[in-house]
Amino acid sequence: MAIRIGIYGYGNLGKGVESAITQNPDLTAVGVFTKRDPATVKTRTGIPVYSVEKALEMTKEIDVMIICGGSSTDLPEQTPYLANYFNVIDSFDTHAKIPEHFKNVDHAATAKDKLAIISVGWDPGMFSLARLYSSSILVDGKDYTFWGKGVSQGHSDAIRRIDGVQDAKQYTVPVEEALRAVRNAENPELSTRQKHTRECFVVAKEGADKAKIESEIKNMPNYFADYDTSVTFISQDELNEKHSGIPHGGFVIRSGKTGLNGEHSHVIEYSLKLDSNPEFTASVLVAYARACYRLQKQGVFGCKTVFDIPPVLLSPLSREEVIKSML
Amino acid sequence: MAIRIGIYGYGNLGKGVESAITQNPDLTAVGVFTKRDPATVKTRTGIPVYSVEKALEMTKEIDVMIICGGSSTDLPEQTPYLANYFNVIDSFDTHAKIPEHFKNVDHAATAKDKLAIISVGWDPGMFSLARLYSSSILVDGKDYTFWGKGVSQGHSDAIRRIDGVQDAKQYTVPVEEALRAVRNAENPELSTRQKHTRECFVVAKEGADKAKIESEIKNMPNYFADYDTSVTFISQDELNEKHSGIPHGGFVIRSGKTGLNGEHSHVIEYSLKLDSNPEFTASVLVAYARACYRLQKQGVFGCKTVFDIPPVLLSPLSREEVIKSML
Repeated sequence: MAIRIGIYGYGNLGKGVESAITQNPDLTAVGVFTKRDPATVKTRTGIPVYSVEKALEMTKEIDVMIICGGSSTDLPEQTPYLANYFNVIDSFDTHAKIPEHFKNVDHAATAKDKLAIISVGWDPGMFSLARLYSSSILVDGKDYTFWGKGVSQGHSDAIRRIDGVQDAKQYTVPVEEALRAVRNAENPELSTRQKHTRECFVVAKEGADKAKIESEIKNMPNYFADYDTSVTFISQDELNEKHSGIPHGGFVIRSGKTGLNGEHSHVIEYSLKLDSNPEFTASVLVAYARACYRLQKQGVFGCKTVFDIPPVLLSPLSREEVIKSML
Repeated sequence: MAIRIGIYGYGNLGKGVESAITQNPDLTAVGVFTKRDPATVKTRTGIPVYSVEKALEMTKEIDVMIICGGSSTDLPEQTPYLANYFNVIDSFDTHAKIPEHFKNVDHAATAKDKLAIISVGWDPGMFSLARLYSSSILVDGKDYTFWGKGVSQGHSDAIRRIDGVQDAKQYTVPVEEALRAVRNAENPELSTRQKHTRECFVVAKEGADKAKIESEIKNMPNYFADYDTSVTFISQDELNEKHSGIPHGGFVIRSGKTGLNGEHSHVIEYSLKLDSNPEFTASVLVAYARACYRLQKQGVFGCKTVFDIPPVLLSPLSREEVIKSML
C-alpha cells in the first residue's frame, strides 16, 4: 500500500509537493488542507481539498503530513501543533530560530509517539548535509555557502513595499571572483559584499520618482545596503515575460588540508541549479516523508533533522537494490 | 576517553589514516598491524607496529579496526575475518563484487555482535551518497559519474608491465564537452570514449621501441582501447619531478525534471578535487570509524554501508552543536 501523504497549505510549495507525489508511485496524496474556504481551492491533480479543521478527523488516513506553510508565522505554530496528531515534515528555514523550533516540535512529537523531521529542503537541508559531511571529512578546513543565481522572495517583497513601486523581482548572484578563490583553496576572508551581488528588476508606477526608488533600494539596511546592488527599471510586460520563474540554487564549497604538515589540499563542492525553487524543495520534502514513514515504523519518535536520517531510507529502491546499483 | 583505532595495513592508505587521526583529537591510534616484519616498519608518528597475528590479542584495546588493504586480494579475506573480532571499516572498491563482500562481512559481524562498515571512501563512498541523495530527490532524472583528473594506479601498473617500459603514470581526464552537456541537463547518451580520455606519461628503457610501446598501450583491451589515449615519453627525472603526486577527484552530476509535465529542470552536482587520493580516502574512513564506534555503542551490529549511517554520527561535534552551526 502506498504511503499516504497529507499536504497542509497550498501555496507554491504545497503545489510542488502535490506534483512531486505524482512522480513517486509508492506515495499517494490524501488531500490538501487549507485555511481558505475549500470550495474556492482547486487542486492541480484533482485531489480533495479540506479545511484545516478537518485534518484532526483524518489522523488514521494520513501516514505523514507535509506542512507547507511559511517560516515566519505558520510553521512555528503549525508544526508543534500537528506533531500532536501526525508524523510531520516541514521546511522551517529561519536558521537562527531552528534550535527553538526543534525543541517545541520535539516536545510535542515525543509526548505522542510521533516522528517529526524539520528544516527539510535545500538550505536548510541538502546544503546543511553538504556542510556536515565535508566538515566531518576535512576537519582542518573552512566552508563557504553561496546562493544564486536565484530569486529572493523576501528581497523582492521588500522592494515592492517601497512607495512608487508597482512590482519587482530580486536576484541574488554569487560573485565569480569569490567562487574562484574558494575553489582554489585560497581560504579567503570574504565580506558580505564580496560574496554576493543583488540584481533588482523594478516596475515603477506611472509618474514615480525612479531616482528616489533606486536610492531607497540601495540604502535599505540589512537587505541591500551591505551589497553591490544594481537596479534596472523595466515594464510590467517585460517583468512578466522574462522574470516570472522562481529559479534558485547555490554552492557549498569546503577546502581543507590533510597530511602530517597539512601538505595536501582538497576541495569538496556541492551545487544546485534549480529552475523552480519550490518544486525542488517539495521533491526533497517528499523523499524525507518516505524516510519518516519508514523510520516511525521502526519505532523512532521525536524531532529529527536531515542529519539524523540514514540516507538509504530516502530512496524508493530497496536497500539491496541501492547497494547493488549505487554503491 | 578517545576512540581507539587500529590500522591494519601500512601502505599509502594506512599512512593516510595515521595522519588523519592526528587531526581528530577524539580519536587515538593504538598502532599499525603489518604482514611485514614489524621491526622493518617505522611509522610516521611513532605509533607502535605489531605483526598482524598480534591483533587478536588486542581485541580489548581497539574500538575500531580500519583495514587498509587492497580490494583485489586483501579485503575479501581480511574484512570478514577481522569482523569476527573487531568493529571494522574498509574501503572495498570493486563495485561489482560489493554485494558478495557485504554478505560475507555481514555474516561474520552479525554472529559476533560486531559492527562493520564497508566500501567507505569517495567512490564507493561520498560519490555513492551523492548518487543516492540526488536520485531520491530527482526521481525523474539521470546521473553521471566522471572521474579525474587523477592518477589511476591500475592503469599505471598496466603500462609498467609492458616490455620496454621503465616507469609510467596514467591520468584519467573527464571530457569537458561531456561535462558541459550533462551540466546543461541535456541528458546525453555518452560512450566510454566520450566521457573520459587517458593521458599516459611513460619512461622507456634505453633502446626500447617507443612506437611499439605506444601502440601496445593504445590497443590494450579494457584499459585503453575504448578511450582516446595520449602517450608522452618523458625522462625518469621529469616523471619523478612532475608526476609523483597521487591527485584524483571527479564529479557526480544528476539532472532531473519536476512539475506535472516535467516543465522544470534541475541539476545537482557533487565534485571533489583531491591533492592526495589516499589521504582523502583515509579522512573519510576515519570519520566513519567515529560513526562506527557511536553506532555499536547503541547496539547496532552487522554489515553497514555509507547509506545506512546517520550523517550526524560522523561529526566530531555534538548533535546540538551540529544543528546550531550547520543546519
